[in-house]
Amino acid sequence: MIRILYLLSKPEHMSKEQFDAECLRHFEMSEGIPGLHKYEVRLIASEPTDLHVPFFDVQGVDAIGECWFENEQQMQTYMDSEVRKNWFEHGKTFIGKLKPFITKDVI
Amino acid sequence: MIRILYLLSKPEHMSKEQFDAECLRHFEMSEGIPGLHKYEVRLIASEPTDLHVPFFDVQGVDAIGECWFENEQQMQTYMDSEVRKNWFEHGKTFIGKLKPFITKDVI
Repeated sequence: MIRILYLLSKPEHMSKEQFDAECLRHFEMSEGIPGLHKYEVRLIASEPTDLHVPFFDVQGVDAIGECWFENEQQMQTYMDSEVRKNWFEHGKTFIGKLKPFITKDVI
Repeated sequence: MIRILYLLSKPEHMSKEQFDAECLRHFEMSEGIPGLHKYEVRLIASEPTDLHVPFFDVQGVDAIGECWFENEQQMQTYMDSEVRKNWFEHGKTFIGKLKPFITKDVI
């Protein structure tokens, strides 16, 4: 499974309420996108700072998204899809900044 | 389900190879910790910067972890557990910096 995790930051001018609503809309729009095995987007409930190790001060994250693809071929199907292109157009309307991480399992 | 996502940064002096090995060890040690429903830790395969929206420049992330708890009671069981305390001691030996996000579902 190929997994890409995203840190999302809302546009400065956008209210938290509108951003949260657009995240929900983006989640709903993800259903049925060719090649996309799973999509998830979560909001931030709280950000603890009192830790057992030094704190990593990463600021401005308003949501965390993730895409799952079964393999490279499915990911290419996704990239080529017109539905996916429309989905990205919606992303442009509410994602202020985006940080992707393509991850790999530790095992 | 309560989910906490973590951005991990390795200590400056530690090699990537040692850090990756300690992440694997940390994953293995997570098995059977009371109250912990699931633990996952992933390494970074690549960090794309060519995006359809502005780039969010978050640097220094070497791994992404996540803890799942069924409910507050299970999370308290975890917090009180001696096995969990030993696990955190291992964390102190290889986590340079840590950024937690307690997340909530968009729906």
